[in-house]
Amino acid sequence: MFTYTFENDKKSSLYMQLYDFIKADILSGKLRRGDKLPSKRAAAKHLGVSVITTENAYAALQSEGYIYSLPKKGYYVSEISKLYHPAAVEQVRREPIIPEKKKYLYDFSSNGILADNFPFSVWAHLMRETFHHAKEDLISPSPSGGIAALQEALCTHLKQFRGIDAAPLQIIIGAGTEYLYSLLIQLLGGQACYALQNPGYPKIAKIYKSVGVKNVFVSEDDNGISIRRLNQSGADIAHISPSHSFPSGKVMSISRRHELLNWANEEQKRYIIEDDYDSEFRLAGKPLPALQSLDKHEKVIYVNTFTKSLSPTIRISYMVLPRHLAELFYRRLGFYACTVSNFEQYTLAEFMLQGYFEKHINRMRNYYKKIRNLLLQEIKNSPLAQCSEVAEEKAGLHFLLKLKTDMPDALLKKKAAAAGIHISFLSEYYRADSTEVPAHVIVMNYSALKKENIPAAVKALEKVLIK
Amino acid sequence: MFTYTFENDKKSSLYMQLYDFIKADILSGKLRRGDKLPSKRAAAKHLGVSVITTENAYAALQSEGYIYSLPKKGYYVSEISKLYHPAAVEQVRREPIIPEKKKYLYDFSSNGILADNFPFSVWAHLMRETFHHAKEDLISPSPSGGIAALQEALCTHLKQFRGIDAAPLQIIIGAGTEYLYSLLIQLLGGQACYALQNPGYPKIAKIYKSVGVKNVFVSEDDNGISIRRLNQSGADIAHISPSHSFPSGKVMSISRRHELLNWANEEQKRYIIEDDYDSEFRLAGKPLPALQSLDKHEKVIYVNTFTKSLSPTIRISYMVLPRHLAELFYRRLGFYACTVSNFEQYTLAEFMLQGYFEKHINRMRNYYKKIRNLLLQEIKNSPLAQCSEVAEEKAGLHFLLKLKTDMPDALLKKKAAAAGIHISFLSEYYRADSTEVPAHVIVMNYSALKKENIPAAVKALEKVLIK
Repeated sequence: MFTYTFENDKKSSLYMQLYDFIKADILSGKLRRGDKLPSKRAAAKHLGVSVITTENAYAALQSEGYIYSLPKKGYYVSEISKLYHPAAVEQVRREPIIPEKKKYLYDFSSNGILADNFPFSVWAHLMRETFHHAKEDLISPSPSGGIAALQEALCTHLKQFRGIDAAPLQIIIGAGTEYLYSLLIQLLGGQACYALQNPGYPKIAKIYKSVGVKNVFVSEDDNGISIRRLNQSGADIAHISPSHSFPSGKVMSISRRHELLNWANEEQKRYIIEDDYDSEFRLAGKPLPALQSLDKHEKVIYVNTFTKSLSPTIRISYMVLPRHLAELFYRRLGFYACTVSNFEQYTLAEFMLQGYFEKHINRMRNYYKKIRNLLLQEIKNSPLAQCSEVAEEKAGLHFLLKLKTDMPDALLKKKAAAAGIHISFLSEYYRADSTEVPAHVIVMNYSALKKENIPAAVKALEKVLIK
Repeated sequence: MFTYTFENDKKSSLYMQLYDFIKADILSGKLRRGDKLPSKRAAAKHLGVSVITTENAYAALQSEGYIYSLPKKGYYVSEISKLYHPAAVEQVRREPIIPEKKKYLYDFSSNGILADNFPFSVWAHLMRETFHHAKEDLISPSPSGGIAALQEALCTHLKQFRGIDAAPLQIIIGAGTEYLYSLLIQLLGGQACYALQNPGYPKIAKIYKSVGVKNVFVSEDDNGISIRRLNQSGADIAHISPSHSFPSGKVMSISRRHELLNWANEEQKRYIIEDDYDSEFRLAGKPLPALQSLDKHEKVIYVNTFTKSLSPTIRISYMVLPRHLAELFYRRLGFYACTVSNFEQYTLAEFMLQGYFEKHINRMRNYYKKIRNLLLQEIKNSPLAQCSEVAEEKAGLHFLLKLKTDMPDALLKKKAAAAGIHISFLSEYYRADSTEVPAHVIVMNYSALKKENIPAAVKALEKVLIK
């Protein structure tokens, strides 16, 4: 019979204590395979506890497999001979899991937004309203593509601002464009070859590499991605940003758009992924219609995000699938849950339907125009103007600053970093095997710059770049 | 010289109208390749508009590539000979993109939650607080694994409730376990072979199939997944739910847990994915420690979700990576943005840190106990009791109802559906090539049942199941 001493400190219940005692005896070998345990009643009497206590302890031990019961016979200790005996783990001093990030005084490399620019009060208000009026909806699982109200709001927006005519169910909402790419790869097949722009946004290439699909890199000429090189590349799918190529800042000409659509039409397996990541922020001239709006053959998959237009931390992106791909999506990938929380989907739907999104975009466009103009003005008024040239400043939230210098880009970058300035060069966005890489061109992102810091930031930059 | 008639309806600005006129002339062939346009000044004078209007229109046409300029010469029409000429798209009546879903009166198949059970008022309060106090944090991109506050809150919770000892950075937060699986596949390599349980949750198999990795199916015996069959399968990674297998409801015995850890230790490439999806709702006896808490060799990847414990629509899941895999994650996949919105990460962190999560879980555990007991009581008091047997009712939010009947499962399911009742059979969760499939066993989910509907639901079920 057991002899255990219970503690009445209430930290752990009596049955847990009994469970621990018996388990320790089994693990130490004191109780061995096949040993019969006293009956629950006998053990309770002996230990001075209630039968419920022994019952619970035995049940816990049984459910974890330490003991087993035979009908009308009682409880026995299980075979735990194959116990897991780990070798001693070597305790070595290990590096931190993530190396610490360098902090900068001025960051021309970040494409984040400033907290002051997020419409917190409207957002909080709409979220509160949603909590009041749509409890059931908030808790009912969203269809795979997203909630209908947001799909409809996006349809209206896309029709009005990007000339895109789509049914709500063609719109698939997901937690970031990176996630949507992974869905697209599953939809279009892992065997397809994807063409990316060179220079380009390095994350896209990393994703394709990480999921193990084939990709090739195609360079741009003045009109956009080269069709001749696209044909040579053997690609099936062209992943591009015709409205504003990153980082080159180029806009694809209308004739090239038509050529590209013709290219896609030549073979059934060909598609175009149109990544329209910052089209809301074309700061000069008329907005360009989306490539998708010219497409008559269900060849263009349009992708956009609220990263630039609301916040990168809200993680809401969407894609417009051509009709036949939307059908395929629901048939083949409809088992996936939508990755965006209902709470935020409903809030964003209201934000759009009540006209707040349009207002916010207009406000932000004016804001970024001011920031850009101030930055350009400061550069113009500084000695930098003598040894640099601004280019591609009309579309999107970055421009190019071409320097007249002999210093290599890597050295300039290092000097800037030493002065607390983060800059990225166009050359960093080129593949290692590129033949013609333009040197001395800074990609100037300004969305995360504080207005009041701009004069000092330009001064600091000037000190670094001018010997 | 152009002759265009402008409308003063303010719907579209003068420059947009001019842009449209010229574009239409180019597309129709009225203006041809190489044609010289009048100077901006001459056109303005002729049309009776300002020079700014013609300037804007020309700039828009140029940025889209319809016209080009030669320095000191003027503007010319581009070559648009390769224009995209789509064939007429056949207009056929098409099926709806998603077939309509059947609605049920009583759903024993859903594992959703009821809106009344979500802590809306606390959540709204915490979100409002976060909006007030953490604006900067809400807008600063979260590290790839998630925000530190939530990682820390999860660490404390896991230590206390699941016996898991992990550093915050070992915890990776993502928008749903489905998404985390896709990260794991990228981390562990697409060449590995994954073993899944048979019977099992079909979505997991669908994900592996969709991303194109190899998987095999291993059946369970009374102690859990069979090690002998696991060895025969050639699998490198075992994806299992030791605390509560779905749908069988089985709990892996302690000796099998040790055997499984030994299996993983035999080869370097072997890992265990421990999917602990509803361990919070072990309704009887002591909570089982996680398999991960026994692991001394960094072989167990622990995965859990707030789908059951908060809401399936909130899309927050997490995994605990062994230390060396966490390092690999940040090195190789650290470029991915975290897929959960900062707003909800901070709110959930507060919800956990302020003790609301523990309270909520306790409340829900009691609530589900009541629902389960009521359901079991209603079955016991109905004629169903004579021709059925309840099993595996202790852990998690479902149990098995084994029927004594001759009717095939498919027929029973159909009859139930006709009566407005949604039921799923254990047999539906077996692979098509399984040898021994138990018939007449209903998987009874009860988390989405309304208390007041239970008596009527059981009565309706009784009518269907008893001839």
